[in-house]
Amino acid sequence: MSHTLEELAGFVGGRVEGDTTCVIENVASLESAGSRDISFYTGGKHKAALANTQANAVILSDKHVSLITTNLIVVDNPLLAFAQIAKKLNPVKPKSGVHPDASVDPNANIDASAYVGAQSVIAAGVQVKAGVVIEAACVIEHDCIIGENSTLHANVTLCHGTIIGKNAIIYSGAVIGGDGFGMANDKGRWIKIPQLGIVEIGDDVEIGANTTIDRGALDNTVIGKGVKLDNLIQIAHNVKIGDHTAIAGCVGIAGSVVIGNYCTIAGGVGITDQVQIADNVHITATSLVTQSISQSGAYSSGTPLQENAKWQRNYVRFTQLDDMAKRLKRIETEFKNKK
Amino acid sequence: MSHTLEELAGFVGGRVEGDTTCVIENVASLESAGSRDISFYTGGKHKAALANTQANAVILSDKHVSLITTNLIVVDNPLLAFAQIAKKLNPVKPKSGVHPDASVDPNANIDASAYVGAQSVIAAGVQVKAGVVIEAACVIEHDCIIGENSTLHANVTLCHGTIIGKNAIIYSGAVIGGDGFGMANDKGRWIKIPQLGIVEIGDDVEIGANTTIDRGALDNTVIGKGVKLDNLIQIAHNVKIGDHTAIAGCVGIAGSVVIGNYCTIAGGVGITDQVQIADNVHITATSLVTQSISQSGAYSSGTPLQENAKWQRNYVRFTQLDDMAKRLKRIETEFKNKK
Amino acid sequence: MSHTLEELAGFVGGRVEGDTTCVIENVASLESAGSRDISFYTGGKHKAALANTQANAVILSDKHVSLITTNLIVVDNPLLAFAQIAKKLNPVKPKSGVHPDASVDPNANIDASAYVGAQSVIAAGVQVKAGVVIEAACVIEHDCIIGENSTLHANVTLCHGTIIGKNAIIYSGAVIGGDGFGMANDKGRWIKIPQLGIVEIGDDVEIGANTTIDRGALDNTVIGKGVKLDNLIQIAHNVKIGDHTAIAGCVGIAGSVVIGNYCTIAGGVGITDQVQIADNVHITATSLVTQSISQSGAYSSGTPLQENAKWQRNYVRFTQLDDMAKRLKRIETEFKNKK
Repeated sequence: MSHTLEELAGFVGGRVEGDTTCVIENVASLESAGSRDISFYTGGKHKAALANTQANAVILSDKHVSLITTNLIVVDNPLLAFAQIAKKLNPVKPKSGVHPDASVDPNANIDASAYVGAQSVIAAGVQVKAGVVIEAACVIEHDCIIGENSTLHANVTLCHGTIIGKNAIIYSGAVIGGDGFGMANDKGRWIKIPQLGIVEIGDDVEIGANTTIDRGALDNTVIGKGVKLDNLIQIAHNVKIGDHTAIAGCVGIAGSVVIGNYCTIAGGVGITDQVQIADNVHITATSLVTQSISQSGAYSSGTPLQENAKWQRNYVRFTQLDDMAKRLKRIETEFKNKK
Repeated sequence: MSHTLEELAGFVGGRVEGDTTCVIENVASLESAGSRDISFYTGGKHKAALANTQANAVILSDKHVSLITTNLIVVDNPLLAFAQIAKKLNPVKPKSGVHPDASVDPNANIDASAYVGAQSVIAAGVQVKAGVVIEAACVIEHDCIIGENSTLHANVTLCHGTIIGKNAIIYSGAVIGGDGFGMANDKGRWIKIPQLGIVEIGDDVEIGANTTIDRGALDNTVIGKGVKLDNLIQIAHNVKIGDHTAIAGCVGIAGSVVIGNYCTIAGGVGITDQVQIADNVHITATSLVTQSISQSGAYSSGTPLQENAKWQRNYVRFTQLDDMAKRLKRIETEFKNKK
Repeated sequence: MSHTLEELAGFVGGRVEGDTTCVIENVASLESAGSRDISFYTGGKHKAALANTQANAVILSDKHVSLITTNLIVVDNPLLAFAQIAKKLNPVKPKSGVHPDASVDPNANIDASAYVGAQSVIAAGVQVKAGVVIEAACVIEHDCIIGENSTLHANVTLCHGTIIGKNAIIYSGAVIGGDGFGMANDKGRWIKIPQLGIVEIGDDVEIGANTTIDRGALDNTVIGKGVKLDNLIQIAHNVKIGDHTAIAGCVGIAGSVVIGNYCTIAGGVGITDQVQIADNVHITATSLVTQSISQSGAYSSGTPLQENAKWQRNYVRFTQLDDMAKRLKRIETEFKNKK
């Protein structure tokens, strides 16, 4: 699908510098773009790539206009404009109908405009709304609801009663609604506590490949609207994640954690149970959060990477840190007394 | 399914305070319970919720009886009694038979009381015992054995020869019996070592969603009875986990690790290969275990979360820690000599 | 399949000490081996097991010949010879044909020598080359290419356009080619950036169970030849991994990271976006890498495990580390001035 530069600029509310009539067929990186492509520049280390690009046009902001003489779309937020143009130039082909190799319960309710792929299983009581795409080999257990225009990629599992909002995208291998890890201890033996809540997913949510979200124990696990979850994330029972929060891969969130709106949580972070996190909190990679955070801001834990030999020496000193602190205090006192 | 409070108290060996004849239909949290529900209280921060609850009855222990005037079941272990009552009020409906859309090898042996869901694949030589439930889209490779009354949720993979005990519950996306990560190095190139052991899972084990347990290289990987594994755990080849140990999400356990009985391992912990861990060891979240632990007790590693700006300053000092320790020692010596 | 010791020694280029005609049926560990088995010894803590082994023969290197009087195959690299002999004694039975319960698009191209298991889905435009094995319940989306003699275990998902080299092994639950986690921020809301690249996997690659590899945003995600990936690894969009690099379980690699050849990355490591890592870099378990590494060598981060009570005291001191460093400097200065 191709458009003129003028059409694209109008679509994203930008202005053209250069040839408004040139035809753009696709998006590409600065390095790989050719004469039919549009690319983008947001600053930083890609300056050389910008100077050398063969792109027909580049999307950038006012402050970078002077860096290049090719055709331009000038906007306030080049990355956003790029996302919108990339989507316009690469529209998803709609599909509908139930593949003959799917296994659909007669008591499931599938909108005529929805698609169900081969080998997928749709159980009784499921509601699949208009425009939904369920790719191959998904399992949708009984009484799930999948909102309008949501997409489930291949091999997704929705356990019974899961509710998915509109325009959600769920990637392969994700498991939504498995039982929470809830147990009572009976003289050393663990006794399962039935997990009776469900998972509710808001509109415009993305859930990455092989991510797991457990159902609530009694009340529900709730993922707010516009939340973006990367791959291999674990979200335990009764977690609540606020709207428009983004969480990167390999994060683990324990039971009953509450996370605010507009947070970002980088890869590999761990959050222990019951922790409450305010809005607009940003946590850097592989941090461990064991206490609630009531103020917005950026938070971190961890120690720096070093050459192994140097690290070994500092590593072992960590076990002496309290002793060092006391000795330092002592010598300060003695020194002061002596003066 | 409903019961009188007296019936429920008898079932868990507790005593009723209040109306023994009131009818309980379900369990609920203190916050959401209504006039047909029973809830529980174990102390701590839920005191306000207890005071305000609309539950018909509450399960608690003797020391909390004075906190509330509603109907009570008084027991030593309220959480355990709650688990038992929740299960009694929410019985799992038994199901049996092979779904017509399953793919079952004629040389598989499936008990008449077992259930096999749509699109599941059961290979030759598999033994599915009485009362087993295999939900949709599972793959059970050749020569697996699944013990009485075990449940496999949708999309579980059991690789060839895996043995599952009785009353196990395996959640969606779990992969049991994939090859271990065993390789020989041939002048820089990695050569696969065939993985010839199997995985043996004891009775009463739970395995979380998308958790992976690798087969042994030569001898077997062994998960003891009553072990509870959360989601997204990696258990490498030849690991042995003792009875009644519980492991939280996102833990990684490397090859040939041996873990004792009655241990708890919190989320995100890493354990390097060959480590041996005694009984009754408790490891806190995201700790790294690189050496064997021979004494029971609680163990930890890691550094605290701070505001990013403060953390930055401490973070960089970690690389100077050995130097600081030496300088502290030196000044102590000099100061002493001077006195 | 059995061989004489002489045949096996010839196969791996070793020399026999002892009975060249003895018949070996299988491999086993030193502890479990019997009179028809061959085992191996590479030194270290298995010395007692070597002394007590009932193995018919042992593979070891010259320096360990004097440790035992049983039959021997003496080679330079015993683990490699063991891997080769284990494979020879346990050949994989070839299989071919399409299972009648598979769902294969008429526009897929499947070599007659390839195998497709029950409930697998092969979409239009897919090329399955000679000798490929696709086990049960895999989903191969449109336009994927799977190279000669590669094996996909049950429940693997290859998203559209993924290219797999020759002799690859992909374990259950792996998801290759899901969308990268790429978003533009529009006044607090996250807008998806279409992910238009693919994933290219080289020859002789192994990919562990439930590992996820995302497609590139514009250019491709590339896994070099001979790369070995363990279970539950996350590889983000546009990552490039060099040839013969091995990565252990639970590692998370963020977007656009470039890793060199012959690296090893231990379990649980996190690597933040854009980081570049040279050849022959070795990173120890659960390290966090936030900056590029230009020199080969071993690198680490993290703090040691301690008993919880001791750790608590050191843990809290970490937040005072910068203050301690300044105070130490001050007292050094004062002390010096005083002298």
